[in-house]
Amino acid sequence: MTGCCTVLGAFLFEYDTPRIVLIRSRKVGLMNRTVQLLILAYVIGWVFVWEKGYQETDSVVSSVTVKAKGVTMTNTSKLGFRIWDVADYVIPAQEENSVFIMTNMVITMNQTQGLCPEIPGKTTVCETDANCTAGSAGTHSSGVATGRCVSFNGTLKTCEVAAWCPVEDDTEVPKPAFLKAAENFTLLVKNNIWYPKFNFSKRNILPNITTAYLKTCIYDAKTDPFCPIFRLGKIVESAGHSFQDIAIEGGIMGIQIKWNCNLDRAASFCLPRYSFRRLDTRDLAHNVSPGYNFRFAKYYSDLNGAEHRTLIKAYGIRFDIIVFGKVAWPPAPLVQSPVVFFCWSGQRPTLYPHHNFFFFSYRSQAGKFDIIPTMINIGSGLALLGVATVLCDVIVLYCMKKRYYYREKKYKYVEDYEQGLGNQMDQ
Amino acid sequence: MTGCCTVLGAFLFEYDTPRIVLIRSRKVGLMNRTVQLLILAYVIGWVFVWEKGYQETDSVVSSVTVKAKGVTMTNTSKLGFRIWDVADYVIPAQEENSVFIMTNMVITMNQTQGLCPEIPGKTTVCETDANCTAGSAGTHSSGVATGRCVSFNGTLKTCEVAAWCPVEDDTEVPKPAFLKAAENFTLLVKNNIWYPKFNFSKRNILPNITTAYLKTCIYDAKTDPFCPIFRLGKIVESAGHSFQDIAIEGGIMGIQIKWNCNLDRAASFCLPRYSFRRLDTRDLAHNVSPGYNFRFAKYYSDLNGAEHRTLIKAYGIRFDIIVFGKVAWPPAPLVQSPVVFFCWSGQRPTLYPHHNFFFFSYRSQAGKFDIIPTMINIGSGLALLGVATVLCDVIVLYCMKKRYYYREKKYKYVEDYEQGLGNQMDQ
Amino acid sequence: MTGCCTVLGAFLFEYDTPRIVLIRSRKVGLMNRTVQLLILAYVIGWVFVWEKGYQETDSVVSSVTVKAKGVTMTNTSKLGFRIWDVADYVIPAQEENSVFIMTNMVITMNQTQGLCPEIPGKTTVCETDANCTAGSAGTHSSGVATGRCVSFNGTLKTCEVAAWCPVEDDTEVPKPAFLKAAENFTLLVKNNIWYPKFNFSKRNILPNITTAYLKTCIYDAKTDPFCPIFRLGKIVESAGHSFQDIAIEGGIMGIQIKWNCNLDRAASFCLPRYSFRRLDTRDLAHNVSPGYNFRFAKYYSDLNGAEHRTLIKAYGIRFDIIVFGKVAWPPAPLVQSPVVFFCWSGQRPTLYPHHNFFFFSYRSQAGKFDIIPTMINIGSGLALLGVATVLCDVIVLYCMKKRYYYREKKYKYVEDYEQGLGNQMDQ
Repeated sequence: MTGCCTVLGAFLFEYDTPRIVLIRSRKVGLMNRTVQLLILAYVIGWVFVWEKGYQETDSVVSSVTVKAKGVTMTNTSKLGFRIWDVADYVIPAQEENSVFIMTNMVITMNQTQGLCPEIPGKTTVCETDANCTAGSAGTHSSGVATGRCVSFNGTLKTCEVAAWCPVEDDTEVPKPAFLKAAENFTLLVKNNIWYPKFNFSKRNILPNITTAYLKTCIYDAKTDPFCPIFRLGKIVESAGHSFQDIAIEGGIMGIQIKWNCNLDRAASFCLPRYSFRRLDTRDLAHNVSPGYNFRFAKYYSDLNGAEHRTLIKAYGIRFDIIVFGKVAWPPAPLVQSPVVFFCWSGQRPTLYPHHNFFFFSYRSQAGKFDIIPTMINIGSGLALLGVATVLCDVIVLYCMKKRYYYREKKYKYVEDYEQGLGNQMDQ
Repeated sequence: MTGCCTVLGAFLFEYDTPRIVLIRSRKVGLMNRTVQLLILAYVIGWVFVWEKGYQETDSVVSSVTVKAKGVTMTNTSKLGFRIWDVADYVIPAQEENSVFIMTNMVITMNQTQGLCPEIPGKTTVCETDANCTAGSAGTHSSGVATGRCVSFNGTLKTCEVAAWCPVEDDTEVPKPAFLKAAENFTLLVKNNIWYPKFNFSKRNILPNITTAYLKTCIYDAKTDPFCPIFRLGKIVESAGHSFQDIAIEGGIMGIQIKWNCNLDRAASFCLPRYSFRRLDTRDLAHNVSPGYNFRFAKYYSDLNGAEHRTLIKAYGIRFDIIVFGKVAWPPAPLVQSPVVFFCWSGQRPTLYPHHNFFFFSYRSQAGKFDIIPTMINIGSGLALLGVATVLCDVIVLYCMKKRYYYREKKYKYVEDYEQGLGNQMDQ
Repeated sequence: MTGCCTVLGAFLFEYDTPRIVLIRSRKVGLMNRTVQLLILAYVIGWVFVWEKGYQETDSVVSSVTVKAKGVTMTNTSKLGFRIWDVADYVIPAQEENSVFIMTNMVITMNQTQGLCPEIPGKTTVCETDANCTAGSAGTHSSGVATGRCVSFNGTLKTCEVAAWCPVEDDTEVPKPAFLKAAENFTLLVKNNIWYPKFNFSKRNILPNITTAYLKTCIYDAKTDPFCPIFRLGKIVESAGHSFQDIAIEGGIMGIQIKWNCNLDRAASFCLPRYSFRRLDTRDLAHNVSPGYNFRFAKYYSDLNGAEHRTLIKAYGIRFDIIVFGKVAWPPAPLVQSPVVFFCWSGQRPTLYPHHNFFFFSYRSQAGKFDIIPTMINIGSGLALLGVATVLCDVIVLYCMKKRYYYREKKYKYVEDYEQGLGNQMDQ
């Protein structure tokens, strides 16, 4: 019991602090401070570098809706005079974070279930039925072979297939793009973000944007950086590509919305920044299966209920909206003393510097958020300063002329009795 | 060689520990312990705060499928008597993480390619052909102007456009919502999650849920918190909005599934928590382009193969399912001594406290996962305790009456010969 | 002023280093080193373990497109002879990161708005009109009840509903799957990734892949690990399931693309690794609402403009493409002395080891990226080594026979005058 109290007393009422050798040496002193400064510079550098690179796409909850507008007219021998509006060229009608705009197409009208010759090709051209194996359906064939070899046109014979007839002939893609006017179509992107941790939410249609402005504005990095309406042509150009090129074979464009919010400042400073990028990077040198296209069909039924369809191989641009929710936190001003203390030690307050004192200041508001960086910074920062001492010790104790003298001062050698060595000398 | 051995010997067989001044002072001792306790409280506070906020959306692989159910009936002069079921109001038929339910619409039937007057508007009303520029197609126009000015109705003349005729008139949106009965439709949300690191997977249809229960249950935070079937009306209300309001102009609702799994406990404790939130936050004060709508068309062909379509401007609610995979790790009980040691030092085991000893305990199972937090905690925790000493030193050496006495005890001053100063005095 | 200079001078030109007791004891010395080594092993272990587990799904910007190929033929009494191609079985025609392949279906042709008896079921079978409540529309009913009880067939009477008639009868699902041949369909997955931090981008169609190869190859973990074309059957098998089973009721398959890029090495070493996994884990023991299906309709209009539709309940497999962008960083070789120093201390350079020196080496290139791990490692690493000293102190000062002797050497006791205690003795 008493022992326990003694122990507790010792634990509570004793203060242990390491004994220090104070070496009054310009050389070493300066060296020490320099190393410490270097380390600090390094840490701060890190903090900054890292503060920039960090928590891109932090858990932000974002919702995106995209609305295309624009109408154009085509006049071809095949289709005749035709108007194309949103319901015609946006497929599917709605998606979660992206929108597809058809810019080019290979259309095959009035297909019906039946038998017809394949499109001539390496595997499909034939002399006799022997060349066609019944029932075979290769990955690239448009139907199931019947085994007969029939004439495709006067000169050429190809294997017959059971398929939607006539089969699609997509050997050449229209150049220029069929809906090249899509360059002038526009996208209205609505984006709402929400930071669960802060319960802070905002939309990219800023409070100062009026309905009138929204009706007329077009995004421009210089003049209208906050207008959420984008001209397709401009998007592609901003990404450094030519719209008419991409329109032919299609592609994927990324519309990046960066929310760079410093929650210390007013919410009105939390603004979206738009940037554009082609996501299906194609090195022209190595251009295997470029672009983006898919097939869909419109189904009709005629009088006697028989079904026929119009098959469309749609080339176009898919716009993926990518939202980065970046929350900046105030970088920690790492302060390496002299920290000032006022002490009322009897007489008038006097000012004392103290060495090796190291602390961080965070602004309160963002503090809740800075838990992890703070811990990392303080922990590693303090530990790193230790390196300074280690380095200087190395210099002082191993590299200076007076090293033996210094060692004698720093170290107290204690022999281990148990090893029956001589008594230790102490200073 | 021998030198090398000496060095290695020294390295291996020497133990260096700092020399300590033990100050038996109630004041300072208590101060020291207090500061240490504060720091610990702080760290633990952090750990907990941070443990809550951390690794929301940790790399969880999740798959979501949504299935809507419900049927309703409308009876309007335009459409007559009509039944609406899933295939009618879910567009598109399937999406990856979201589902769109049409609640309101502006329908334009029997559109054909042709020429017709524009809907009257600021830019479209005209007196003479001079007011209409041929070939122009503004962002908001429904077709390409022919340049003629034709009568829209008896009183009014508007520019003629080549378009899908008749052009859509969406000037007023039906109030109340056309499919207001959608309030009673239901969503069955199936969600499977998988943590790659743990190869732990689970689905939100819990093992104790029977087919019978699933046929009848409706989610309710109180009574049926684990029923994965949600009434649309309830979802919107839970988010604090009125379904009939949102149904008119549409919107985006978020269905959040939080998996809060402590993998130390049985998998049966790993349960989904549902919460709802309107993602397209609209401040009523500033209500520019609210809601969510898009256009799609159903295409038909009549006898002579001519195509006509029904254009639908669909207003509705998109439900985005957002999955948070949160893995709780057992918070580290930071223990600040007295840590107890039993030492068999010849006589009976005795108990010794030791100061400044600081450690963490983690449960083994989750340990694999807690690498990073553990390192952060230990590293920063140990470093932070150093601050206590620094602070107390400041007090003791600069602010206490006996500071000079204490300094004399702590410091040993060593002059640098090279600076030709006097010999140092040592105590 | 002068005071200030003194203070500054003291701060700059003084070097303070702790005084050390050097205990020449094999036992303790070895113990100390061992503990330090253990800690280091532990840390390194962590670093490696953690390096593996970390930054899976680091903020990589990825775009995915999927293209299905394949055609098959069915011959049923209901539909007769029919060909199915991409436009028929991919619904919707395009999605952002996934593709749905219909493998099975329940088709209901020529539905029109009207009145018809419900499918017999627990709630729908009736004797008299009294059993049917007019206007009721349960979650699972296919229409709105009229309140009449009509004969479903000779023997059975069910409630009449206003609905798309005839109502769908999905009581039994076709076995084997209607489009079982889908096993041989193929998916071409195109994936582009981009690391914003490094501005490094790559696509999964590697530079050495030629158009000819792409036309013929099929992914195989052994023979063709980099061919981006996947046979559906193989995907499902690789995930350890049977395609024909999953084809009947549908399901969700995950195609995981792991980019394991060490940016220190040439970009050509940055390669995609494919793995497959069934995401809708179904424990056969507890098989509630398995599989994946949804309904969609094709709308037709007959002569007099009346609308009819073909309702399809589509069962099938949704393939979600999941991209993990993992960037490996060179693991830090933690080196614990002897670190070598050359010092020109007048005479020939001599070699000194130094204890307790601890550093990391990072390759420059990835350094920018390793900020956070580096800070964590150094900070915690240094701090952890402190633990060694603490432990050994405990042993030396509390558990060794000569503990009092060692304590006397390590500690210097100072009484607090203010507590009126005796003078302190010092050695």
